[in-house]
Amino acid sequence: MDTSTKKIVLAVLKGGEIHTRTYEGREKHAVKLAPVLDSFLSSIPASLRELEKIGLGIGPGSLTGLRIGIGFAIGVASVTNAKIVPLNSFEVIANGVFWKGKKVVVRKARKGFVYIQVFPSGEPKVLSVEEAKKVIENLENPILIGDGKEFFEFEKAPDFFDYPSPEVLIKMTIDRDGVDYTEVKPLYVQKSIAEINYERRMKDV
Amino acid sequence: MDTSTKKIVLAVLKGGEIHTRTYEGREKHAVKLAPVLDSFLSSIPASLRELEKIGLGIGPGSLTGLRIGIGFAIGVASVTNAKIVPLNSFEVIANGVFWKGKKVVVRKARKGFVYIQVFPSGEPKVLSVEEAKKVIENLENPILIGDGKEFFEFEKAPDFFDYPSPEVLIKMTIDRDGVDYTEVKPLYVQKSIAEINYERRMKDV
Repeated sequence: MDTSTKKIVLAVLKGGEIHTRTYEGREKHAVKLAPVLDSFLSSIPASLRELEKIGLGIGPGSLTGLRIGIGFAIGVASVTNAKIVPLNSFEVIANGVFWKGKKVVVRKARKGFVYIQVFPSGEPKVLSVEEAKKVIENLENPILIGDGKEFFEFEKAPDFFDYPSPEVLIKMTIDRDGVDYTEVKPLYVQKSIAEINYERRMKDV
Repeated sequence: MDTSTKKIVLAVLKGGEIHTRTYEGREKHAVKLAPVLDSFLSSIPASLRELEKIGLGIGPGSLTGLRIGIGFAIGVASVTNAKIVPLNSFEVIANGVFWKGKKVVVRKARKGFVYIQVFPSGEPKVLSVEEAKKVIENLENPILIGDGKEFFEFEKAPDFFDYPSPEVLIKMTIDRDGVDYTEVKPLYVQKSIAEINYERRMKDV
Protein backbone atom coordinates (compact mmCIF):
# COMPACT_ATOMS: atom_id res chain seq x y z
CA MET A 1 0.00 0.00 0.00
CA ASP A 2 1.16 3.50 -0.76
CA THR A 3 -0.75 6.67 0.14
CA SER A 4 2.11 9.14 -0.19
CA THR A 5 0.74 10.76 -3.37
CA LYS A 6 -2.74 11.72 -4.46
CA LYS A 7 -3.12 8.18 -5.78
CA ILE A 8 -4.08 5.29 -3.49
CA VAL A 9 -1.96 2.36 -4.67
CA LEU A 10 -2.81 -1.19 -3.63
CA ALA A 11 -1.52 -4.61 -4.64
CA VAL A 12 -2.00 -8.12 -3.29
CA LEU A 13 -0.14 -11.35 -3.98
CA LYS A 14 -2.22 -14.40 -3.08
CA GLY A 15 -1.78 -17.97 -4.25
CA GLY A 16 0.63 -16.94 -7.01
CA GLU A 17 -1.84 -14.39 -8.38
CA ILE A 18 -1.12 -10.67 -8.42
CA HIS A 19 -3.99 -8.21 -8.09
CA THR A 20 -3.62 -4.43 -8.23
CA ARG A 21 -5.99 -1.54 -7.61
CA THR A 22 -5.45 2.21 -7.72
CA TYR A 23 -7.66 5.20 -7.06
CA GLU A 24 -7.01 8.79 -8.04
CA GLY A 25 -9.67 11.43 -7.50
CA ARG A 26 -10.96 14.32 -5.48
CA GLU A 27 -11.87 12.35 -2.38
CA LYS A 28 -9.35 12.39 0.44
CA HIS A 29 -7.46 9.23 1.34
CA ALA A 30 -9.11 9.38 4.78
CA VAL A 31 -12.46 8.92 3.04
CA LYS A 32 -11.49 6.51 0.26
CA LEU A 33 -8.77 4.21 1.60
CA ALA A 34 -10.96 1.90 3.70
CA PRO A 35 -13.80 1.40 1.17
CA VAL A 36 -11.45 1.01 -1.82
CA LEU A 37 -9.29 -1.50 0.04
CA ASP A 38 -12.31 -3.35 1.41
CA SER A 39 -13.96 -3.83 -1.98
CA PHE A 40 -10.60 -4.68 -3.55
CA LEU A 41 -9.94 -7.44 -1.02
CA SER A 42 -13.49 -8.78 -1.38
CA SER A 43 -13.01 -9.04 -5.12
CA ILE A 44 -9.92 -11.24 -4.83
CA PRO A 45 -11.27 -12.62 -2.41
CA ALA A 46 -8.91 -11.98 0.48
CA SER A 47 -9.12 -10.55 3.97
CA LEU A 48 -6.88 -8.31 6.04
CA ARG A 49 -6.36 -11.22 8.47
CA GLU A 50 -4.66 -13.23 5.74
CA LEU A 51 -1.94 -10.66 5.05
CA GLU A 52 1.41 -12.11 6.13
CA LYS A 53 3.48 -9.12 5.08
CA ILE A 54 2.36 -5.57 4.34
CA GLY A 55 4.57 -3.46 2.08
CA LEU A 56 3.98 0.10 3.16
CA GLY A 57 5.06 3.31 1.47
CA ILE A 58 6.29 5.50 4.33
CA GLY A 59 6.99 8.63 2.30
CA PRO A 60 8.32 11.18 1.67
CA GLY A 61 4.90 12.46 0.83
CA SER A 62 1.89 14.56 1.62
CA LEU A 63 1.46 14.47 5.33
CA THR A 64 -2.18 13.66 5.96
CA GLY A 65 -2.71 11.12 3.19
CA LEU A 66 0.52 9.37 4.03
CA ARG A 67 -0.25 9.16 7.72
CA ILE A 68 -3.70 7.70 7.08
CA GLY A 69 -2.07 4.83 5.19
CA ILE A 70 0.64 4.26 7.77
CA GLY A 71 -1.86 4.40 10.61
CA PHE A 72 -4.14 1.97 8.86
CA ALA A 73 -1.37 -0.55 8.19
CA ILE A 74 -0.06 -0.35 11.74
CA GLY A 75 -3.59 -0.80 13.02
CA VAL A 76 -4.09 -3.92 10.95
CA ALA A 77 -0.69 -5.37 11.85
CA SER A 78 -1.24 -4.74 15.54
CA VAL A 79 -4.30 -7.02 15.38
CA THR A 80 -3.05 -9.67 12.96
CA ASN A 81 0.70 -9.71 13.73
CA ALA A 82 1.50 -9.21 10.03
CA LYS A 83 5.04 -8.02 9.38
CA ILE A 84 5.43 -4.62 7.74
CA VAL A 85 7.95 -3.88 4.98
CA PRO A 86 8.59 -0.12 5.17
CA LEU A 87 9.27 1.20 1.68
CA ASN A 88 10.67 4.58 0.69
CA SER A 89 7.92 5.88 -1.61
CA PHE A 90 10.50 7.75 -3.72
CA GLU A 91 12.37 4.50 -4.26
CA VAL A 92 9.13 2.84 -5.41
CA ILE A 93 8.59 5.72 -7.85
CA ALA A 94 12.20 5.59 -9.09
CA ASN A 95 12.03 1.82 -9.63
CA GLY A 96 9.10 2.32 -12.00
CA VAL A 97 11.28 4.26 -14.44
CA PHE A 98 13.85 2.59 -16.65
CA TRP A 99 16.71 5.00 -17.28
CA LYS A 100 20.43 4.70 -17.95
CA GLY A 101 21.60 7.51 -15.71
CA LYS A 102 20.71 9.15 -12.41
CA LYS A 103 17.05 9.14 -11.46
CA VAL A 104 15.95 12.19 -9.47
CA VAL A 105 12.60 12.05 -7.70
CA VAL A 106 11.41 15.58 -6.88
CA ARG A 107 8.12 16.44 -5.28
CA LYS A 108 6.68 19.79 -4.32
CA ALA A 109 7.14 20.77 -0.68
CA ARG A 110 6.38 24.17 0.82
CA LYS A 111 6.59 27.07 -1.66
CA GLY A 112 10.13 27.38 -3.01
CA PHE A 113 11.18 23.95 -1.70
CA VAL A 114 11.17 20.39 -2.98
CA TYR A 115 11.58 16.93 -1.55
CA ILE A 116 14.38 15.36 -3.55
CA GLN A 117 16.24 12.07 -3.71
CA VAL A 118 18.79 10.90 -6.27
CA PHE A 119 18.84 7.20 -7.23
CA PRO A 120 20.79 5.11 -6.80
CA SER A 121 22.58 6.03 -3.59
CA GLY A 122 21.14 9.40 -2.50
CA GLU A 123 19.24 10.28 0.67
CA PRO A 124 15.83 11.99 0.76
CA LYS A 125 16.14 15.70 1.48
CA VAL A 126 14.21 18.95 1.53
CA LEU A 127 16.03 21.56 -0.54
CA SER A 128 15.18 24.95 -1.93
CA VAL A 129 14.63 24.89 -5.68
CA GLU A 130 17.97 26.70 -6.11
CA GLU A 131 19.86 24.20 -3.95
CA ALA A 132 18.20 21.31 -5.81
CA LYS A 133 19.20 22.81 -9.16
CA LYS A 134 22.85 22.83 -8.11
CA VAL A 135 22.63 19.19 -7.01
CA ILE A 136 21.05 18.08 -10.28
CA GLU A 137 23.52 20.06 -12.42
CA ASN A 138 26.34 17.92 -11.07
CA LEU A 139 24.71 14.60 -11.95
CA GLU A 140 25.52 12.51 -15.00
CA ASN A 141 22.55 12.09 -17.38
CA PRO A 142 19.78 12.94 -14.88
CA ILE A 143 16.06 12.29 -15.43
CA LEU A 144 13.51 14.08 -13.25
CA ILE A 145 10.44 12.25 -11.94
CA GLY A 146 7.60 13.59 -9.77
CA ASP A 147 5.41 16.69 -9.52
CA GLY A 148 8.36 18.89 -8.55
CA LYS A 149 9.98 18.46 -11.97
CA GLU A 150 8.13 21.49 -13.35
CA PHE A 151 10.50 23.80 -11.46
CA PHE A 152 13.51 22.60 -13.45
CA GLU A 153 14.83 22.60 -17.01
CA PHE A 154 16.40 19.13 -17.00
CA GLU A 155 15.20 16.01 -18.83
CA LYS A 156 11.83 14.90 -17.45
CA ALA A 157 9.89 11.64 -17.37
CA PRO A 158 6.21 11.91 -18.41
CA ASP A 159 3.70 12.71 -15.62
CA PHE A 160 2.49 9.14 -15.85
CA PHE A 161 5.58 8.10 -13.84
CA ASP A 162 5.00 10.54 -10.96
CA TYR A 163 3.26 7.88 -8.86
CA PRO A 164 4.27 4.62 -7.23
CA SER A 165 3.44 1.63 -9.41
CA PRO A 166 1.52 -1.18 -7.69
CA GLU A 167 3.64 -3.69 -9.60
CA VAL A 168 6.85 -2.23 -8.23
CA LEU A 169 5.32 -2.02 -4.77
CA ILE A 170 4.46 -5.72 -4.67
CA LYS A 171 7.84 -6.75 -6.09
CA MET A 172 9.76 -4.76 -3.47
CA THR A 173 7.51 -6.18 -0.74
CA ILE A 174 8.17 -9.77 -1.85
CA ASP A 175 11.91 -9.18 -2.05
CA ARG A 176 12.35 -7.72 1.45
CA ASP A 177 11.91 -8.87 5.00
CA GLY A 178 9.29 -7.30 7.21
CA VAL A 179 9.67 -5.72 10.64
CA ASP A 180 7.42 -5.52 13.67
CA TYR A 181 4.75 -2.83 13.35
CA THR A 182 6.11 -1.08 16.43
CA GLU A 183 9.22 -0.15 14.42
CA VAL A 184 7.35 1.59 11.61
CA LYS A 185 7.25 5.36 11.27
CA PRO A 186 6.97 7.89 8.44
CA LEU A 187 10.22 8.55 6.60
CA TYR A 188 12.01 11.43 8.23
CA VAL A 189 13.39 13.89 5.71
CA GLN A 190 16.36 15.84 6.88
CA LYS A 191 15.87 19.58 6.72
CA SER A 192 18.17 21.67 4.62
CA ILE A 193 20.12 24.64 5.94
CA ALA A 194 17.85 26.88 3.88
CA GLU A 195 14.77 25.39 5.47
CA ILE A 196 16.15 25.67 8.98
CA ASN A 197 17.01 29.33 8.33
CA TYR A 198 13.53 29.87 6.93
CA GLU A 199 11.95 28.43 10.05
CA ARG A 200 14.19 30.57 12.26
CA ARG A 201 13.12 33.67 10.37
CA MET A 202 9.45 32.70 10.71
CA LYS A 203 9.95 32.20 14.44
CA ASP A 204 11.44 35.65 14.75
CA VAL A 205 8.51 37.28 12.99
CA MET B 1 -9.58 -3.14 -21.14
CA ASP B 2 -6.71 -5.21 -22.42
CA THR B 3 -6.60 -9.01 -22.41
CA SER B 4 -3.82 -9.49 -24.93
CA THR B 5 -1.28 -10.69 -22.36
CA LYS B 6 -1.55 -12.98 -19.36
CA LYS B 7 -2.56 -9.93 -17.34
CA ILE B 8 -6.15 -8.65 -17.33
CA VAL B 9 -5.83 -4.86 -17.38
CA LEU B 10 -8.79 -2.66 -16.49
CA ALA B 11 -9.22 1.07 -15.92
CA VAL B 12 -12.23 3.34 -15.49
CA LEU B 13 -12.55 7.12 -15.59
CA LYS B 14 -15.70 8.31 -13.84
CA GLY B 15 -16.46 11.77 -12.49
CA GLY B 16 -12.85 12.87 -12.79
CA GLU B 17 -11.62 9.87 -10.79
CA ILE B 18 -9.38 7.20 -12.26
CA HIS B 19 -9.65 3.63 -11.00
CA THR B 20 -7.44 0.78 -12.15
CA ARG B 21 -7.49 -2.97 -11.57
CA THR B 22 -5.24 -5.74 -12.86
CA TYR B 23 -5.17 -9.51 -12.43
CA GLU B 24 -2.33 -11.85 -13.22
CA GLY B 25 -2.55 -15.50 -12.29
CA ARG B 26 -3.15 -19.03 -13.37
CA GLU B 27 -6.85 -18.71 -14.14
CA LYS B 28 -7.76 -18.20 -17.77
CA HIS B 29 -9.18 -14.87 -18.91
CA ALA B 30 -12.36 -16.72 -19.89
CA VAL B 31 -12.82 -17.59 -16.22
CA LYS B 32 -11.59 -14.40 -14.56
CA LEU B 33 -12.53 -11.48 -16.81
CA ALA B 34 -16.22 -11.27 -15.92
CA PRO B 35 -15.90 -11.65 -12.12
CA VAL B 36 -12.85 -9.36 -11.86
CA LEU B 37 -14.54 -6.67 -13.98
CA ASP B 38 -17.84 -7.05 -12.14
CA SER B 39 -16.35 -6.63 -8.67
CA PHE B 40 -14.13 -3.80 -9.91
CA LEU B 41 -17.09 -1.86 -11.29
CA SER B 42 -19.12 -2.49 -8.11
CA SER B 43 -16.30 -1.07 -6.04
CA ILE B 44 -16.22 2.25 -7.92
CA PRO B 45 -19.31 2.06 -8.09
CA ALA B 46 -20.06 2.00 -11.81
CA SER B 47 -21.99 -0.19 -14.21
CA LEU B 48 -21.34 -1.40 -17.74
CA ARG B 49 -24.37 0.59 -18.89
CA GLU B 50 -22.65 3.83 -17.90
CA LEU B 51 -19.62 3.30 -20.12
CA GLU B 52 -19.63 5.91 -22.88
CA LYS B 53 -16.42 4.80 -24.52
CA ILE B 54 -14.57 1.50 -24.16
CA GLY B 55 -10.85 1.50 -24.90
CA LEU B 56 -10.07 -2.00 -26.07
CA GLY B 57 -6.69 -3.65 -26.63
CA ILE B 58 -7.13 -5.54 -29.91
CA GLY B 59 -3.72 -7.22 -29.95
CA PRO B 60 -1.36 -8.47 -31.20
CA GLY B 61 -1.63 -11.07 -28.48
CA SER B 62 -2.48 -14.53 -27.32
CA LEU B 63 -5.45 -15.63 -29.32
CA THR B 64 -7.95 -16.99 -26.83
CA GLY B 65 -7.45 -14.46 -24.04
CA LEU B 66 -7.52 -11.59 -26.49
CA ARG B 67 -10.68 -12.78 -28.19
CA ILE B 68 -12.50 -13.17 -24.87
CA GLY B 69 -11.85 -9.50 -24.14
CA ILE B 70 -12.81 -8.31 -27.60
CA GLY B 71 -15.94 -10.43 -27.59
CA PHE B 72 -16.93 -9.16 -24.17
CA ALA B 73 -16.48 -5.50 -25.14
CA ILE B 74 -18.39 -5.91 -28.39
CA GLY B 75 -21.14 -7.69 -26.49
CA VAL B 76 -21.44 -4.85 -24.00
CA ALA B 77 -21.32 -2.16 -26.69
CA SER B 78 -23.95 -3.90 -28.77
CA VAL B 79 -26.37 -3.57 -25.85
CA THR B 80 -25.38 -0.14 -24.55
CA ASN B 81 -24.28 1.61 -27.76
CA ALA B 82 -20.98 2.58 -26.16
CA LYS B 83 -18.31 3.58 -28.65
CA ILE B 84 -15.19 1.43 -28.79
CA VAL B 85 -11.67 2.83 -29.10
CA PRO B 86 -9.59 0.03 -30.65
CA LEU B 87 -6.05 0.19 -29.30
CA ASN B 88 -2.97 -1.61 -30.60
CA SER B 89 -1.85 -3.48 -27.48
CA PHE B 90 1.80 -3.15 -28.52
CA GLU B 91 1.38 0.62 -28.71
CA VAL B 92 -0.07 0.62 -25.18
CA ILE B 93 2.94 -1.38 -24.00
CA ALA B 94 5.40 0.89 -25.84
CA ASN B 95 3.79 4.03 -24.41
CA GLY B 96 4.47 2.73 -20.89
CA VAL B 97 8.23 2.88 -21.44
CA PHE B 98 10.16 6.12 -21.50
CA TRP B 99 13.14 5.78 -23.81
CA LYS B 100 15.13 8.10 -26.07
CA GLY B 101 15.43 5.84 -29.06
CA LYS B 102 13.47 3.18 -30.93
CA LYS B 103 11.12 1.07 -28.83
CA VAL B 104 10.74 -2.50 -30.08
CA VAL B 105 7.87 -4.57 -28.69
CA VAL B 106 8.55 -8.28 -29.24
CA ARG B 107 6.34 -11.08 -28.06
CA LYS B 108 6.70 -14.81 -28.47
CA ALA B 109 4.74 -16.31 -31.33
CA ARG B 110 5.05 -19.90 -32.59
CA LYS B 111 8.46 -21.52 -31.95
CA GLY B 112 11.18 -19.58 -33.77
CA PHE B 113 8.93 -16.59 -34.48
CA VAL B 114 8.04 -13.34 -32.74
CA TYR B 115 5.41 -10.68 -33.06
CA ILE B 116 7.32 -7.45 -33.45
CA GLN B 117 6.59 -3.76 -33.87
CA VAL B 118 9.00 -0.83 -33.83
CA PHE B 119 7.84 2.48 -32.29
CA PRO B 120 7.32 5.07 -33.45
CA SER B 121 6.24 4.40 -37.03
CA GLY B 122 6.52 0.62 -37.53
CA GLU B 123 3.79 -1.89 -38.35
CA PRO B 124 3.08 -5.06 -36.33
CA LYS B 125 4.58 -8.14 -37.99
CA VAL B 126 5.35 -11.79 -37.44
CA LEU B 127 9.00 -12.47 -38.16
CA SER B 128 11.39 -15.30 -37.54
CA VAL B 129 13.87 -14.56 -34.76
CA GLU B 130 16.59 -14.22 -37.41
CA GLU B 131 14.56 -11.77 -39.49
CA ALA B 132 13.71 -9.77 -36.38
CA LYS B 133 17.36 -9.62 -35.39
CA LYS B 134 18.24 -8.04 -38.73
CA VAL B 135 15.49 -5.46 -38.32
CA ILE B 136 16.61 -4.50 -34.82
CA GLU B 137 20.29 -4.31 -35.79
CA ASN B 138 19.46 -1.48 -38.17
CA LEU B 139 17.69 0.63 -35.56
CA GLU B 140 19.21 3.55 -33.71
CA ASN B 141 19.43 3.00 -29.93
CA PRO B 142 16.79 0.23 -29.68
CA ILE B 143 15.19 -0.99 -26.44
CA LEU B 144 13.38 -4.34 -26.39
CA ILE B 145 10.11 -4.73 -24.48
CA GLY B 146 7.95 -7.86 -24.11
CA ASP B 147 8.37 -11.56 -23.46
CA GLY B 148 10.11 -12.13 -26.80
CA LYS B 149 13.11 -10.04 -25.72
CA GLU B 150 14.86 -13.10 -24.29
CA PHE B 151 15.71 -14.28 -27.82
CA PHE B 152 17.88 -11.23 -28.46
CA GLU B 153 21.08 -9.63 -27.20
CA PHE B 154 20.01 -5.99 -27.46
CA GLU B 155 19.22 -3.58 -24.61
CA LYS B 156 16.13 -4.76 -22.73
CA ALA B 157 13.54 -3.10 -20.50
CA PRO B 158 12.80 -4.91 -17.21
CA ASP B 159 10.04 -7.59 -17.34
CA PHE B 160 7.83 -5.22 -15.39
CA PHE B 161 7.22 -3.31 -18.65
CA ASP B 162 6.09 -6.35 -20.65
CA TYR B 163 2.41 -5.63 -20.00
CA PRO B 164 -0.01 -2.86 -20.92
CA SER B 165 -0.31 -0.28 -18.17
CA PRO B 166 -3.87 0.60 -17.10
CA GLU B 167 -2.80 4.24 -16.81
CA VAL B 168 -1.62 4.32 -20.41
CA LEU B 169 -4.75 2.47 -21.52
CA ILE B 170 -7.08 5.05 -19.98
CA LYS B 171 -5.05 7.98 -21.30
CA MET B 172 -5.10 6.66 -24.88
CA THR B 173 -8.83 5.97 -24.57
CA ILE B 174 -9.56 9.51 -23.42
CA ASP B 175 -7.44 11.01 -26.20
CA ARG B 176 -9.06 9.13 -29.10
CA ASP B 177 -12.47 8.93 -30.73
CA GLY B 178 -14.45 5.73 -30.59
CA VAL B 179 -15.99 3.75 -33.44
CA ASP B 180 -19.10 1.65 -33.74
CA TYR B 181 -18.70 -1.84 -32.28
CA THR B 182 -19.44 -3.37 -35.67
CA GLU B 183 -16.12 -2.02 -36.93
CA VAL B 184 -13.98 -3.67 -34.24
CA LYS B 185 -11.87 -6.74 -34.93
CA PRO B 186 -8.62 -8.23 -33.60
CA LEU B 187 -5.48 -6.63 -35.00
CA TYR B 188 -4.42 -8.51 -38.08
CA VAL B 189 -0.69 -9.17 -38.14
CA GLN B 190 0.80 -9.60 -41.57
CA LYS B 191 2.59 -12.86 -42.04
CA SER B 192 6.26 -12.85 -42.97
CA ILE B 193 7.70 -14.63 -45.97
CA ALA B 194 9.36 -17.05 -43.57
CA GLU B 195 6.06 -17.85 -41.95
CA ILE B 196 4.26 -18.30 -45.24
CA ASN B 197 7.03 -20.67 -46.38
CA TYR B 198 6.81 -22.53 -43.08
CA GLU B 199 3.07 -23.01 -43.53
CA ARG B 200 3.58 -24.21 -47.10
CA ARG B 201 6.09 -26.76 -45.91
CA MET B 202 3.72 -27.96 -43.19
CA LYS B 203 0.96 -28.26 -45.77
CA ASP B 204 3.20 -30.41 -47.96
CA VAL B 205 4.06 -32.77 -45.10
